[in-house]
Amino acid sequence: MIPTITAFEESPDHGTGQARDMRVRWAFEEVGQRYDVRLVSFKEMKEPAHRALHPFGQIPTYEEGDLVLFESGAIILHVAQRHAGLLPDDANARARAITWMFTALNTVEPPIVELEAAMLMENDRAWYQERLPILDERIRVRLDDLSARLGDADWLDGAFSAADLLMVTVLRRLEGTGILEDYPSLCAYVARGEARPAYRRAFAAQLAVFTGRQPTG
Amino acid sequence: MIPTITAFEESPDHGTGQARDMRVRWAFEEVGQRYDVRLVSFKEMKEPAHRALHPFGQIPTYEEGDLVLFESGAIILHVAQRHAGLLPDDANARARAITWMFTALNTVEPPIVELEAAMLMENDRAWYQERLPILDERIRVRLDDLSARLGDADWLDGAFSAADLLMVTVLRRLEGTGILEDYPSLCAYVARGEARPAYRRAFAAQLAVFTGRQPTG
Repeated sequence: MIPTITAFEESPDHGTGQARDMRVRWAFEEVGQRYDVRLVSFKEMKEPAHRALHPFGQIPTYEEGDLVLFESGAIILHVAQRHAGLLPDDANARARAITWMFTALNTVEPPIVELEAAMLMENDRAWYQERLPILDERIRVRLDDLSARLGDADWLDGAFSAADLLMVTVLRRLEGTGILEDYPSLCAYVARGEARPAYRRAFAAQLAVFTGRQPTG
Repeated sequence: MIPTITAFEESPDHGTGQARDMRVRWAFEEVGQRYDVRLVSFKEMKEPAHRALHPFGQIPTYEEGDLVLFESGAIILHVAQRHAGLLPDDANARARAITWMFTALNTVEPPIVELEAAMLMENDRAWYQERLPILDERIRVRLDDLSARLGDADWLDGAFSAADLLMVTVLRRLEGTGILEDYPSLCAYVARGEARPAYRRAFAAQLAVFTGRQPTG
């Protein structure tokens, strides 16, 4: 059975792949799972039919027969547990990879989302400029520790896993802020993720929603 | 083998159970797994020996033989996958419960942590009072949706699971803000969690660190 996910009908990021369907598309591509996409408008997302799938009125959702999931982390873990390619077979290595999935979403992403939220919603407030260094510093505290742990390794814990997939998409959210550029090893890490054929296929597919053209190549 | 977790040597919340070791203790109690606790000071947490276990210098960590994990969500998922009592047996129900674990940590907790961060770190800033309604509203958007989905059910999706354990601990972080009181069904939900014998044993154990007295009863 081919699962169906939801994505934004109108890309708020102009196809730069920052919406959270990108993560799920990438996961499908890594494991070779075909998938369908249903596009939803911002209005539809908040209506009862979509809220029946996603109680918080967001994307992506995942539907496969009777099963309905939401939260990109949970969807990716589900895909990774059912297909080879995104989690190690060894039980301890698998538990460590899942730890890094939670790390990406709970320890590294929140201060990045806070900076985005301030840029979107508080940029006309008197305090905006003065708060920016506080937000910046909270991100750097995480990146300092993350880059120290990564060292000169290619991936977070052995081979590429769903943890790297999530961490790369989380770090990509810093594009345009100038922060990641102070961490060359993390820039190289993101570039390694973006160079993966599965990433490129997923990126082209989400971009095609914005351009209205089918991906080529 | 009895796993060892880490917890704060000096409780920053005076034993009210807001530190993230509480979640893990509760999970152990639900599944009947004995555990050891190693207390670490704020200074030790940032030193290399602890950072080897937790790259971000936080608690809790989980050690069991060669296996080292961190992130409370990942530790609880690990415990729940290895012992009966915290996740449904049915594969689809299990995937949904894991979705709600991610929801607690990624959708509901972040705006609550932001309010806490502002209360701790920006309460002497000129903008503090003016930003509070913004932070308050971001939490309420989540609680509106959460309470709508919960309806008059006891737990998020069928029987009590690790998702409820996490969600209850996340909602408990609102104690003292007056926000949760506007959601009677969520207050009752938290109270159901706190009434569980496993919760009470875990709470007593973390309180004993602060009081210096062994839990009784």
